[in-house]
Amino acid sequence: MSGLQAIRYSRGKLEVLDQLKLPHEHHYDEVLTSEEAFDSIKSMRVRGAPAIAIVAALGHGVELHNGSCKASSSEETISYIDSRLDYLKQSRPTAVDLTNAITHLKNTIRSVDVSGKENGTAGRDAIISAYIAAAEEIFRKDTETNLSIGEHGSKWLLENAPTKSADGKVSVLTHCNTGSLATSGHGTALGIIRSLYSGGHLYHAFCTETRPYNQGSRLTAFELVYEGIPSTLITDSMAGALFATKKAENNIAAVIVGADRVVRNGDTANKIGTYALAVLAKYHGLKFIVAAPTTSIDLQTETGAGIKIEERKPEELTQISGAVVGEDGKVDVSRTERVATAHQGIAVWNPAFDVTPAELIDAVVTERGVVVKGADGTFDFKDIMPERWAKVVGK
Amino acid sequence: MSGLQAIRYSRGKLEVLDQLKLPHEHHYDEVLTSEEAFDSIKSMRVRGAPAIAIVAALGHGVELHNGSCKASSSEETISYIDSRLDYLKQSRPTAVDLTNAITHLKNTIRSVDVSGKENGTAGRDAIISAYIAAAEEIFRKDTETNLSIGEHGSKWLLENAPTKSADGKVSVLTHCNTGSLATSGHGTALGIIRSLYSGGHLYHAFCTETRPYNQGSRLTAFELVYEGIPSTLITDSMAGALFATKKAENNIAAVIVGADRVVRNGDTANKIGTYALAVLAKYHGLKFIVAAPTTSIDLQTETGAGIKIEERKPEELTQISGAVVGEDGKVDVSRTERVATAHQGIAVWNPAFDVTPAELIDAVVTERGVVVKGADGTFDFKDIMPERWAKVVGK
Repeated sequence: MSGLQAIRYSRGKLEVLDQLKLPHEHHYDEVLTSEEAFDSIKSMRVRGAPAIAIVAALGHGVELHNGSCKASSSEETISYIDSRLDYLKQSRPTAVDLTNAITHLKNTIRSVDVSGKENGTAGRDAIISAYIAAAEEIFRKDTETNLSIGEHGSKWLLENAPTKSADGKVSVLTHCNTGSLATSGHGTALGIIRSLYSGGHLYHAFCTETRPYNQGSRLTAFELVYEGIPSTLITDSMAGALFATKKAENNIAAVIVGADRVVRNGDTANKIGTYALAVLAKYHGLKFIVAAPTTSIDLQTETGAGIKIEERKPEELTQISGAVVGEDGKVDVSRTERVATAHQGIAVWNPAFDVTPAELIDAVVTERGVVVKGADGTFDFKDIMPERWAKVVGK
Repeated sequence: MSGLQAIRYSRGKLEVLDQLKLPHEHHYDEVLTSEEAFDSIKSMRVRGAPAIAIVAALGHGVELHNGSCKASSSEETISYIDSRLDYLKQSRPTAVDLTNAITHLKNTIRSVDVSGKENGTAGRDAIISAYIAAAEEIFRKDTETNLSIGEHGSKWLLENAPTKSADGKVSVLTHCNTGSLATSGHGTALGIIRSLYSGGHLYHAFCTETRPYNQGSRLTAFELVYEGIPSTLITDSMAGALFATKKAENNIAAVIVGADRVVRNGDTANKIGTYALAVLAKYHGLKFIVAAPTTSIDLQTETGAGIKIEERKPEELTQISGAVVGEDGKVDVSRTERVATAHQGIAVWNPAFDVTPAELIDAVVTERGVVVKGADGTFDFKDIMPERWAKVVGK
């Protein structure tokens, strides 16, 4: 895998891209201790559920590799690692991926066979080795998941595109940021775009700015420019006009988005604005594709009606921060200001997500394959996750 | 008419709201000379085609009333007024309303009967009186046009609303700014909202921020708050989710927008984002209403395909200006900064307008009445403007 990486790792060394400096500066912080990992997460220099879990797991792994653990027994080693993981969990207590990773790592160190090595450094070293291997595996598997989503998604779209250029290329629109910056690399929806591009099948990528938090214009635009992917930024409000006037000329075939949560029937919660794009895609005969690892599929919740949408504070919509643009038109990356862009007294509705009903979605792309909608208008996830289906839904 | 006015006038006195200070400050400039009117227009302190024409016409009227013209013959008076109007025209040479107003005023002063008064102040005074009356008439007629659009539009919507509250109220969404600030007062699309409100028929008004130039969050939000109209600001991307989740609870009945140009078949060019709202309105069973004075109806152009869309510079989308928000969260109206909100290297598509096809529009509301779509899916403007129709289209 090449291209932009939010996380750079080799055993004993971890570097994390400082996303607070994006899109104007491209700077990596060295993360060599749990404290540094905690700080990276807490201060939002790293964001995205998978990325947070990876930075925590590997951050502690690096300090273990570099000899931070002075325990003289297996028991003490487990206790030490537990305490560091409990500390790291507090960096973002609500992050499900982080919690899951920590539970998995705790189970891993307890399953190491230390019989005959309870005391002394042999047991300690075996436990540390197991921890590091497990942390690296979390990182590797996330990358693998993303690459797999990219492959499945690009293949499916090329086979099902409503329009293509003479040489078989398609254009797509994406929303929010689902790329390298939120994951171990490659990304989910943006991963499909990367796979299309690396396969020579991408005509053009369009990204929305994604109001009110501008993940599209700040992060996705940065990733696209960084990798030289042919791309154009538009406001969320321009997607309709884009489809109406530029579809034929650009072979626009699909809207591809990520997911915060896909529920049992396929209804999908994702960044606010996703639903309107799905309606517009339908109206213009474009495919609407949701890219999501199976870990984002929630079989417990039956339909979108069961999803609670977080409403955020008005200031996120009526104010915005950015690097100051000088009189000369140059961006001064050393100076950030927050400015008011709306009347501060107006009432604001600011939902963070919306729910796109399954009927507007053509395909849900997971690392285990593409699930397309059945004749009844809903999705059936039984085949790609039979064990979980049996456990949660029954036969 | 009450409520917010961008232009306050009584004979000999003109005050113009400084829109550059909005939405954080609410300050009127005195405009007593052509030079002050020129400066108001040139510096964008006043905007909106009708408002510009009115400020120019009345600005010169005020100085005439206050004795600026020292001419000693009718001929000299006409020559003086001409020179002032030619000067004022240069404040915004592309503004059609301004050009039309100036042509009308020049014709008016030439049609004054000065027989027997060619020399001396009697002729001069008669010409000046005619000028002032004509300038005031432009102001009065614009207000009348807006009030008439407001009445026709609110009446039509109440008769045709797909949903209403138990006590007969409706909610509407509007886009961009079409209110008092762009006109003599009241407004077009926002005029319909004002009329609904003053008639006790408005449940709630929603306004989009209208990226990238934020006319909705800066200007419309200001007008709504100023007049105490129950209202909520959303991002453009939230309209779909609003209709999907809040339509029933709020009795959302329509999207109402203004128009830059309505062409012969009803296709309408308006602020970018209008088209997407029309698609969403259709999908959710809402009425889609265009509010436009007959002067915005272009019978020469047959369909929307004949409308050229201006594309604006990338910085309008990737940077934004606003009053600085301090550490304490307070807006400092004395400090304005421009900040970068996107990667500055990304390509940008920034069309100022889009075209909504007649098939997505339910009604075009003019000062002469409401035109609804015919069975053939297009609009017929012959009945509301028979003379112009005969002249431009023929029988």
